[in-house]
Amino acid sequence: MTKENRPKARVAKGFRDIAAEEIRGTRQMLATIQRVYEAYGFEPVEQPFIEYTDALGKFLPDQDRPNAGVFSFQDDDDQWLSLRYDLTAPLARYVAENSQKLPTPYRSYRQGWVFRNEKPGPGRFRQFMQFDADTVGSASPVADAEVCMMAADTMEALGLQRGQYVMKFNSRKLLDGFTETFAIGEEVKLTWLRALDKLDRLGKEGVALLLGEGRKDESGDFTKGAGLNAKQIEASLAFATATALDPAFVSGSKNGEDGLRDLEAMQALFAAAGYGADRIRYDSSVVRGLEYYTGPVFECELLMETKDEDGRTVRFGSVGGGGRYDDLVARFTGQQVPATGFSIGVSRLYSALKLVGKAQESATLAPVVVLVMDKDRQGDYWRMVQALRAGGVRAEMYAGTAGMKAQMKYADKRGAPLVVIQGGDEKAKGEVQVKDLRLGSELASNIASREEYASQRLAQFSVPEADLVAAVKKALAQ
Amino acid sequence: MTKENRPKARVAKGFRDIAAEEIRGTRQMLATIQRVYEAYGFEPVEQPFIEYTDALGKFLPDQDRPNAGVFSFQDDDDQWLSLRYDLTAPLARYVAENSQKLPTPYRSYRQGWVFRNEKPGPGRFRQFMQFDADTVGSASPVADAEVCMMAADTMEALGLQRGQYVMKFNSRKLLDGFTETFAIGEEVKLTWLRALDKLDRLGKEGVALLLGEGRKDESGDFTKGAGLNAKQIEASLAFATATALDPAFVSGSKNGEDGLRDLEAMQALFAAAGYGADRIRYDSSVVRGLEYYTGPVFECELLMETKDEDGRTVRFGSVGGGGRYDDLVARFTGQQVPATGFSIGVSRLYSALKLVGKAQESATLAPVVVLVMDKDRQGDYWRMVQALRAGGVRAEMYAGTAGMKAQMKYADKRGAPLVVIQGGDEKAKGEVQVKDLRLGSELASNIASREEYASQRLAQFSVPEADLVAAVKKALAQ
Repeated sequence: MTKENRPKARVAKGFRDIAAEEIRGTRQMLATIQRVYEAYGFEPVEQPFIEYTDALGKFLPDQDRPNAGVFSFQDDDDQWLSLRYDLTAPLARYVAENSQKLPTPYRSYRQGWVFRNEKPGPGRFRQFMQFDADTVGSASPVADAEVCMMAADTMEALGLQRGQYVMKFNSRKLLDGFTETFAIGEEVKLTWLRALDKLDRLGKEGVALLLGEGRKDESGDFTKGAGLNAKQIEASLAFATATALDPAFVSGSKNGEDGLRDLEAMQALFAAAGYGADRIRYDSSVVRGLEYYTGPVFECELLMETKDEDGRTVRFGSVGGGGRYDDLVARFTGQQVPATGFSIGVSRLYSALKLVGKAQESATLAPVVVLVMDKDRQGDYWRMVQALRAGGVRAEMYAGTAGMKAQMKYADKRGAPLVVIQGGDEKAKGEVQVKDLRLGSELASNIASREEYASQRLAQFSVPEADLVAAVKKALAQ
Repeated sequence: MTKENRPKARVAKGFRDIAAEEIRGTRQMLATIQRVYEAYGFEPVEQPFIEYTDALGKFLPDQDRPNAGVFSFQDDDDQWLSLRYDLTAPLARYVAENSQKLPTPYRSYRQGWVFRNEKPGPGRFRQFMQFDADTVGSASPVADAEVCMMAADTMEALGLQRGQYVMKFNSRKLLDGFTETFAIGEEVKLTWLRALDKLDRLGKEGVALLLGEGRKDESGDFTKGAGLNAKQIEASLAFATATALDPAFVSGSKNGEDGLRDLEAMQALFAAAGYGADRIRYDSSVVRGLEYYTGPVFECELLMETKDEDGRTVRFGSVGGGGRYDDLVARFTGQQVPATGFSIGVSRLYSALKLVGKAQESATLAPVVVLVMDKDRQGDYWRMVQALRAGGVRAEMYAGTAGMKAQMKYADKRGAPLVVIQGGDEKAKGEVQVKDLRLGSELASNIASREEYASQRLAQFSVPEADLVAAVKKALAQ
C-alpha cells in the first residue's frame, strides 16, 4: 500500500479507548451493583444494541438537532435501524413484545453501552455505559420507593459514606400541579422551569427577575422573563426552595394532588424502612430532562467536592437518575403499562469512586517476567512460568525476539515487580536469579552515596531452581 | 397515539434478547477466561464500538456482497463511520496510534460485541460477542505457541476434559508452500482448497475427482474439477491427510520452509511444556477464512457429539480461531508489526458448555417473595425483606398492587422457592407464615389420594417473627 493510500490511525471523534486500570475498576464496580440488584430480586435481561428506529421513538434530552441524536442506517429491506441511545426504550419494546411470558410486575436490570450522535465535548463521549434497573407493571409508589432505596444501598455497597451521596426525588405531576394551581401557562412553562433551575447560580433576586419582566446580566445582555405576576413569583420561589412537601402548592389540581399522594407514600415507606433524609429526600429542583417521565423522578447526587472545568470547587453532582414512565409501553400496545426505573452513568460513577479512593483497580499486580536468556532453552523458561502460575503468581515468559537489555526495558515498562533470569552459569549451578525491579527503582531514586548504590545489589538474589516459586511468592509478599 | 401510528414491538431482524440464565452463565464463563488470560500476564484494553470505516479495512470472511457486511453511517463532517465487525481491526488501529507508549511485545485481551450486516440465518446473528487475546510486536513462534497453550488451558479451566477439545494449528505459509512446490496455479488454488475441505464428507475418491476432471454427485449434477495431474492429486491427498509435518511437501519453497520452521518451533515448545497431541496438534485442514492471516493459523475444536440441524450426530466443532496477521498494523504505518491472536466465539462456547453441563447459570436462586397482605403495613413487610437480605437471602417485597391470589401467581411465575405471609391474624400472634412453593408443586404433581393432599399442608409453617430469617435459611438449605 502506498503512503498516500494509507488510512491514518486515529480513534473516531467522540469515542475513546479504555485502558486496563479503568476496565478492571469498572468490572469491580459493576459486580458490586449487580450483587445489590440481585439481592433485591431483580433479574438480568439484555436487549440488542440495534433496534428498529420506530421502536426506539424520540425521547432524547437534547432535541436541538431534530432527527439527530441517534446513529441510524437503512436495512436491506429499507427499514430504518438505530443504535440504542438508552436502555429504557429497548426495554419497553421487549416488555411489549413479551408481556405474556413475563411476571407482573417485571423487575429487571441490565448494563450496556449506549450511543448518542451528538457533538462531543470535554468528558462528553458518543459512547457511554449505563446500568439500569426497572420495575414494569406496577403503578404503586412502592416500586418507585424501592428503586430509590436500592440506589441508596448501592452507593453504600460501593464504599460511599452517609453524607457523600443523596437520592433526591420529586414528581412531574407535582410540577404540573403547581403550574395548574398558580395558572402558569403552558407557553411559559419552559421559561419558568429554566429560571428555577438557576436558583443556585443567580439567587432568589436574579430568578425573580427571570420569572418576571426579565434580567440584564453583568455584560449587559437582557434575558426576557416569563412575565409572571408578583404572587406567582413569590409562590414559585417558595415552591423551589421548599424542603418538605406542602399541599398548598398544588391545591385544587388533580395532577398535583396525585403527585403529592405518590411522594407521601414513598416517604412513608422510607421512614418505615429506616431511610432518613440524609439518604433519600424530597428536592423540588429535580426535574430530569427526558420527555417520557410521567410521575416521580429521582436523581442520585454525590456531595463530595471536586473542581469543575474552570478550577472552581463544586459538588461532584449527579451520577444517575430515573423516574416513572407509564406511557412508554403503550406506544406499542395502546394499553398503559406503569413502569419506573433508575439508570446509573457508569463512567461518571467510576470517576467519583476514584476521587474518594473507592475504585478497586489497583488489586491486580503486573506479572513476573521470566527472561529468555537462551533461545534454545525456551522450554525450560516456559516450565518456570507454568510453575509460577500454578502457584498463583501472574507470570509470563518474554514473548519477543530481542536481547537481554530490551527484555529488561520491557519488564520495566510493564511494571513487572520481579524478573527471573537463568543464563548458562546459573543453569550450571542449578540456580535462578530473581531481580526485584520495585526495590531497584525505589533505591535508585534515593541513592546518596556509593555505599548505598552497592546495596542496590540486595534487589537481586539467587535461589535453587526448585525454590523459585516459594522465593518469588515471598518476595512479592514483601 | 392512534392504532395506525403505533409501531409494532418486535426485535430487529437478526438480533435477539438475552435472558437471565444465559447472562449469568456467560458472566461466569467470561470471568474464568479472564482469570486465565490475566494469569498469563495479558492486560485488558477496549476499543470503542465505532471506528472510521477506512481504519477498519475490509477483511470480512464473506465478501459475497461487496461493500456490505458492515453497518456504516456518515458523520456530520461527511466521514464514514462503521460498527466494528471484529476486535482485531480496532486493536490494530489502537496499536498503530499508541505504539510509542505500549510495551513490545504488547499482550492484551478484550471481550465485546461485534456486528455483521449480513443475512441472518438459524443460529446466525448480526450481533455476537468475541473474546480475543493478542500479542502484537513479536515475530517469534513462541507468541503463537503461547496463544495456543493459553486457549487449551482456558478450555480446561472452563471444565472441559482432555478429549473434549483440541487446539489444531497449521500455517498459511505451509499451504502456499505446497502449491508452489507442486506447481498448483493461483487460478485453481481456491478450487483446490475447497476440494480438500470436503475430505470428511466425500472421502479420498470423491476429492480425487474434484481435484482432477470433476465429479458427478448422486443427483447427477456435475462439479468441474481443478484439473490437476495424477502426481498433484496424490500429493494433495497425502498432504491433506498427513498427521505430522513433512518437509517433502514444501521442499524448494521459501514460503513453505519458513512456515514449516515456525510450526516446528511451536511443536518444540508444546513438547517441552508438556502439551501433548491430545491437547494441541498439527492439522492440515485448518485454513481460517479471514484474508489478513499471514502465518500460523489455529482453531479450537470441541469434540463432543451433538446433533446438527438435520438431526445427524456431529462433533460440536469450532468455538474459536485465530492466527498471525503481520500486515494489519502496517496498513496504517507502512511498517510491518508482527502480531498473532486468538478469538473465542462466546455464545458458541457457552452453548457447548451447556451441552456438557459445565455452564454455571443455575447457581442463582429465585428470590423469596414477601406478600403484601395489608397495604397499610408495607413498612413491616419491607423490614422483613431487609432482614432477609441482611441474612444473605435474595428477597423481594411484592411491588405491585394486586391481591393475594395474583401475588401467589406472581411468586410462582418468578420461580420463588418460598413466600412469606403475614396477615392480620398472624400479626396478632407475632408470627409469620412461610410457604414452600417447591414442595407444594412437587407434591401436587404426585398426589394420589386425599390423605396425601392433606399432607401438602406440610409445605406451609408458622414461625415467630423474630425467627423468620433463620427459618427461611433452614428451609432454603433443604
